[in-house]
Amino acid sequence: MTPEGDDIQALIALLARLPGLGPRSARRVVLHLIRKRSGQMVQLATLLDRVATTSRECLTCGNITGGDLCAICADPTRATGEICVVEDVADLWALERARAFRGRYHVLGGTLSALDEIGPEDLGIPALIDRIPNEHVTEIILALNATVEGQTTAHYIAEALEGTGVSITGLAQGVPIGGELDYLDDGTITAALRARRRL
Amino acid sequence: MTPEGDDIQALIALLARLPGLGPRSARRVVLHLIRKRSGQMVQLATLLDRVATTSRECLTCGNITGGDLCAICADPTRATGEICVVEDVADLWALERARAFRGRYHVLGGTLSALDEIGPEDLGIPALIDRIPNEHVTEIILALNATVEGQTTAHYIAEALEGTGVSITGLAQGVPIGGELDYLDDGTITAALRARRRL
Repeated sequence: MTPEGDDIQALIALLARLPGLGPRSARRVVLHLIRKRSGQMVQLATLLDRVATTSRECLTCGNITGGDLCAICADPTRATGEICVVEDVADLWALERARAFRGRYHVLGGTLSALDEIGPEDLGIPALIDRIPNEHVTEIILALNATVEGQTTAHYIAEALEGTGVSITGLAQGVPIGGELDYLDDGTITAALRARRRL
Repeated sequence: MTPEGDDIQALIALLARLPGLGPRSARRVVLHLIRKRSGQMVQLATLLDRVATTSRECLTCGNITGGDLCAICADPTRATGEICVVEDVADLWALERARAFRGRYHVLGGTLSALDEIGPEDLGIPALIDRIPNEHVTEIILALNATVEGQTTAHYIAEALEGTGVSITGLAQGVPIGGELDYLDDGTITAALRARRRL
């Protein structure tokens, strides 16, 4: 018999599997929660249960939502005609936090991978192509990560969209705001130099 | 309106307040859970709710338990007569993981602090003194942290126990197993040198 008790043990094991947590931090979290068991812990259990029950993918863009359409797709003030393609809901959230884009999104849910047998259908790329005439789309912004997988997927989508008449763009690459050259990798410095602009 | 939705937003805010987590890691955890919403997320909600409802402090030692007595206090194979005093349930768990102690515990739940108005009663020190005749205690091991607060509290308890006839001991201080002198602080090196032993 462990001193923690079976339920507490199971809770620690479950939390330890979450991204960014391990056995030690899971134990700290559980002890913290048990100390606040009538407040924070019950609240957390209720919210987790509610979000687990209600959340699903938006039928149009793949964003997380409580209904059929996400808040962005349902918002009439968001521009139609521009779709920003992202790998993940986390990327969509990051773009929304920056308040830099007022159009619609398309969440792929990953990148193409022959090894993991993830093909265009798994990423909703045919659905993206269908959206072009339906939503009178004129520009597709491929905001995929600057990784090999992200860029491979971006190339594939750009090719698949050839002949649809939409303009296909990608995020600019260069020195991040506040970035110091001394700390940047060679690839970024090369990209920033190549894409230099007149001041 | 945020793209995350109110419940998801509230969940992220709640998780971000847990020890070791922040807004960024809380978002990652929530997205991970939503991806596994029918399995891991429901399981986590259920366990949190159950542990929040059932767990409380052991009436004897202050350990976390699902009943009146914790598994250690209820275990007839654990030695009586020796009580190991710890600051926190986390410390009790650490000692149990090491399997180094087969007696009983007393969890203070903190350290003495004039600033935070934490006195001996708040730490269950009178209850500890009561346990000495009741459980025929012969040794009290003060396994408090080697911090100023821990050692102040240890000194107070040692003084309060004077005249009860029990032997009062503390954990040895020295070089941790696997420790390299070059990386140790001066205090530890000094303590290890002072307490040097014949090989």
